[in-house]
Amino acid sequence: MTVAPGSVIAFECPDASGGQLSAESTVADVPHIDFGMVNPVTGPVFIDGAEPGDALKVTIHEFQPSGWGWTANIPGFGLLADQFEDPALHIWTYDKVGMGPAAYSPIGHVPLKPFPGTIGLAPAEPGNHSVVPPRRVGGNMDIRDLAAGTTLYLPVEVVGALFSVGDTHASQGDGEVCGTAIESPMNIVLGFDLEKQAGLKTPRFTTPGPVSRHLDGKGYEVTTGIGEDLMDGARSAVSQMIDLLCGRHGLKPVEAYMLCSVCGDLRISEIVDMPNWVVSFYFPRLVLE
Amino acid sequence: MTVAPGSVIAFECPDASGGQLSAESTVADVPHIDFGMVNPVTGPVFIDGAEPGDALKVTIHEFQPSGWGWTANIPGFGLLADQFEDPALHIWTYDKVGMGPAAYSPIGHVPLKPFPGTIGLAPAEPGNHSVVPPRRVGGNMDIRDLAAGTTLYLPVEVVGALFSVGDTHASQGDGEVCGTAIESPMNIVLGFDLEKQAGLKTPRFTTPGPVSRHLDGKGYEVTTGIGEDLMDGARSAVSQMIDLLCGRHGLKPVEAYMLCSVCGDLRISEIVDMPNWVVSFYFPRLVLE
Repeated sequence: MTVAPGSVIAFECPDASGGQLSAESTVADVPHIDFGMVNPVTGPVFIDGAEPGDALKVTIHEFQPSGWGWTANIPGFGLLADQFEDPALHIWTYDKVGMGPAAYSPIGHVPLKPFPGTIGLAPAEPGNHSVVPPRRVGGNMDIRDLAAGTTLYLPVEVVGALFSVGDTHASQGDGEVCGTAIESPMNIVLGFDLEKQAGLKTPRFTTPGPVSRHLDGKGYEVTTGIGEDLMDGARSAVSQMIDLLCGRHGLKPVEAYMLCSVCGDLRISEIVDMPNWVVSFYFPRLVLE
Repeated sequence: MTVAPGSVIAFECPDASGGQLSAESTVADVPHIDFGMVNPVTGPVFIDGAEPGDALKVTIHEFQPSGWGWTANIPGFGLLADQFEDPALHIWTYDKVGMGPAAYSPIGHVPLKPFPGTIGLAPAEPGNHSVVPPRRVGGNMDIRDLAAGTTLYLPVEVVGALFSVGDTHASQGDGEVCGTAIESPMNIVLGFDLEKQAGLKTPRFTTPGPVSRHLDGKGYEVTTGIGEDLMDGARSAVSQMIDLLCGRHGLKPVEAYMLCSVCGDLRISEIVDMPNWVVSFYFPRLVLE
């Protein structure tokens, strides 16, 4: 499709498995996922007049969610893949009209805030490119605050920009620590404009208001990872939160891990007190209280 | 001082320069800071009955701020030390009773939320230990959410725990990217209890409510760093925010860098989409709008 700047378009987005999982799937289906089919995106859309050096301004207008989703631990994938070697799957159902918190039976409720996990443009570099890693032009960024009302700016590297979107999530925490969110098919309505020769190096965005108020009402439990490596710190903080949730609420470790992925946030508390940095994992108390 | 569990104690905390900077200081004083005197802490306090393996539960009751503070770029220190080689200093004054946002003349106002940058126990390892890096037992963690009402749990490694606190900040963003916050002398009232044989590996804490509502009212400008290294991603995201703020508001780069340090947040948006991670820097729009 070719569209002019100023256009508003509705996209249909399948779930990140590309239809290999459904609301009836079980954990036995997880090992059979064909990775050649995962993370499909809808596009590309050619934006008239877009040239390398421009920024594509994408206004995220609206989501039309499907009412179901899945979260999985996929062996070999995720921040703690070495500790969680077995597949796991949780199927979610939620009120697609009211969009109230989704039950994590029987112990909690996760507030929802839909966004596209993958949103971006074609890179200039020739060849085939995996859709898994995000790049300068965006892609699988999994930024949970790209919610309705947000404006995203993407650096254009090819004529026409070649925009695609998909991998829609009903909810996710910062980090997406188990590797999956509430993966949920939904439609999304986006507007497009151009900023000529914007000189943008990587994506940036503007949120119209607060980004965490669906989660923060009762405060947070917070664990820390302290040391010379941010990745090790992140792993340590998340591991300790899993231990805390299991000890306190009787969850199985993999259940706590998947719950952390859909609602807990990884933050860098300090990155200057040489040689040790602090990464903190924030778990919103209202999910389990 | 030796105290029993259940005690509540008021601590007097000088600023992080140990009195080398004052409300009358200028940038000419920054290169003369004696690093042997920085980051003084008040303590140690011996907690009766504390033994290795216990957790010290610290309830953060109250702050009595001084009404002034400083933020500096100290050469050789900070996330972008290679880009900001010259000293800089900003002196803040604020209403220590009303604690309204502090002016960053003439272009902005920074909401305040006091916390101790350094709070921790003695490590078991023999010898002298620099107070700069945080450790398993806490210390210079610079976690901006250790605000009034928060409960902090610290792992005890020596008999009596040997608690100290200092480096009080009137405000800071997650990351403390330029290396300093609003460094401000203040008194702090803390309560102490013990959890015997808690099995805690690193500090954790519980917040009584939301942690970002003093900043989030008008949303955020957000820049990203995308790549294989979290540290590089953090540096890239902060650099691009400095460029954005300078271009839009006419700040000098070092002014934007220091402002980012006192109110902007580093978050890990995704840490699983191999091999590229996304670190995002969130600048609260209400500071400059």
